[in-house]
Amino acid sequence: MGLKLYGLPMSTNTTRVMACLHEKGVDFELVPVDLFGGENRQPSFLAKNPLGRIPVLEDGDLTLFESRAITAYVDEKFKETGTDLLRLQNPKEAALVKVWLEVESHHFDPAITPIMFEHFVAPILGKTPDQAAIDASLEKLGKVFDVYESKLSCTKYLAGDFFSLADLHHHACTHYFMKTPWASFVNDRPNVKAWWEGISSRPASMKVAEGMTFVDKK
Amino acid sequence: MGLKLYGLPMSTNTTRVMACLHEKGVDFELVPVDLFGGENRQPSFLAKNPLGRIPVLEDGDLTLFESRAITAYVDEKFKETGTDLLRLQNPKEAALVKVWLEVESHHFDPAITPIMFEHFVAPILGKTPDQAAIDASLEKLGKVFDVYESKLSCTKYLAGDFFSLADLHHHACTHYFMKTPWASFVNDRPNVKAWWEGISSRPASMKVAEGMTFVDKK
Ligand SMILES: N[C@@H](CCC(=O)N[C@@H](CS)C(=O)NCC(=O)O)C(=O)O
Ligand SMILES: N[C@@H](CCC(=O)N[C@@H](CS)C(=O)NCC(=O)O)C(=O)O
Repeated sequence: MGLKLYGLPMSTNTTRVMACLHEKGVDFELVPVDLFGGENRQPSFLAKNPLGRIPVLEDGDLTLFESRAITAYVDEKFKETGTDLLRLQNPKEAALVKVWLEVESHHFDPAITPIMFEHFVAPILGKTPDQAAIDASLEKLGKVFDVYESKLSCTKYLAGDFFSLADLHHHACTHYFMKTPWASFVNDRPNVKAWWEGISSRPASMKVAEGMTFVDKK
Repeated sequence: MGLKLYGLPMSTNTTRVMACLHEKGVDFELVPVDLFGGENRQPSFLAKNPLGRIPVLEDGDLTLFESRAITAYVDEKFKETGTDLLRLQNPKEAALVKVWLEVESHHFDPAITPIMFEHFVAPILGKTPDQAAIDASLEKLGKVFDVYESKLSCTKYLAGDFFSLADLHHHACTHYFMKTPWASFVNDRPNVKAWWEGISSRPASMKVAEGMTFVDKK
């Protein structure tokens, strides 16, 4: 029985998982969820994910949610195929991948998400973007990118000289961020820029980017 | 060479790691960092963690930061001893532990942290707690606890009928939260209350709780 991924190709949390599946060369069926129609709040969906969010992965009788838990599961399950994203054969490398996965979760994501929300989503909801919230988040994001700039002057990718899940997890939000007026936050930092070019030019990233049309619909 | 943990016993992010080390029965040296004196912004500390935060773990020539990366590293490195926190022998259980680790990181922590900040830290900084921010976070936290209440009516702990790293990660912040006026958010939900009693009565939790004097200093 194949993998079923419930989600949408324009959702950052979904493409985080799709990019991982492509890196691993693993086939899956994408089952669209009608977020706008509230399908994610229906009992049948809440039975899969009580938080009512996409993505959800079904692998036989195992149902998983939270994009970053799913990517780690996929990399471990398919350790023999595709890109080695968690470096589990090397405990030191694996530990450093974990460190930078957590930096994405606890520093990068909380800084970039409010910018996405205010710039792209608020107008759709008929609201004026809250510029003070954007500025505060840009300040945090700039500090995170300063740390990356310095780290990436020593190693090609965040956890070392290898592309890992920690880098992959940045793709989805950065893809949309590069379409905001603040792309210079990446482009003005040469190491971050080179890192982003490395990530975004991977076949798996380019494949998911095709479906990331959220911005264009605005 | 033993493990060196840079941090403070009153810091939630430090005790998250300490509780894990106690669960594993692993000895370590706690090296205090003078946050109030800005030691974490000094070049010697930034060389360990470019984000300037505690905790940091040194294990020989390996330096790790981000509390949740450190706990996972510790559980994997010492898989033979103490509590089995990641259930790596059982891929399905391990996947479910990951799911609930991510729920803590992306839903619980972002809801509870602003409450801690406004209630305990703002007054120390000479500011009036922002009640609107507290209320908004309490609403989010209540929704997270509703999901837990329902999950914990089926299984004793979040990922199943076993205590895991996902439960442990909740200890530090919930310990302080129970000293706020909103402890009823836990106590009024019978399954969450029983779960919290299970977590907080573990020897490892009680050991770290002794040092969690931040609130009392207020
Ligand atoms: N931390 C979760 C976030 C999932 C999430 O918020 N997904 C959005 C779409 S990108 C969603 O389902 N939103 C619907 C809602 O919140 O009602 C993950 O990584 O999977
Ligand atoms: N996500 C990080 C957070 C670490 C953190 O924010 N630690 C606080 C103490 S609890 C700190 O070092 N604060 C000092 C500062 O921000 O300057 C982790 O889990 O380790």
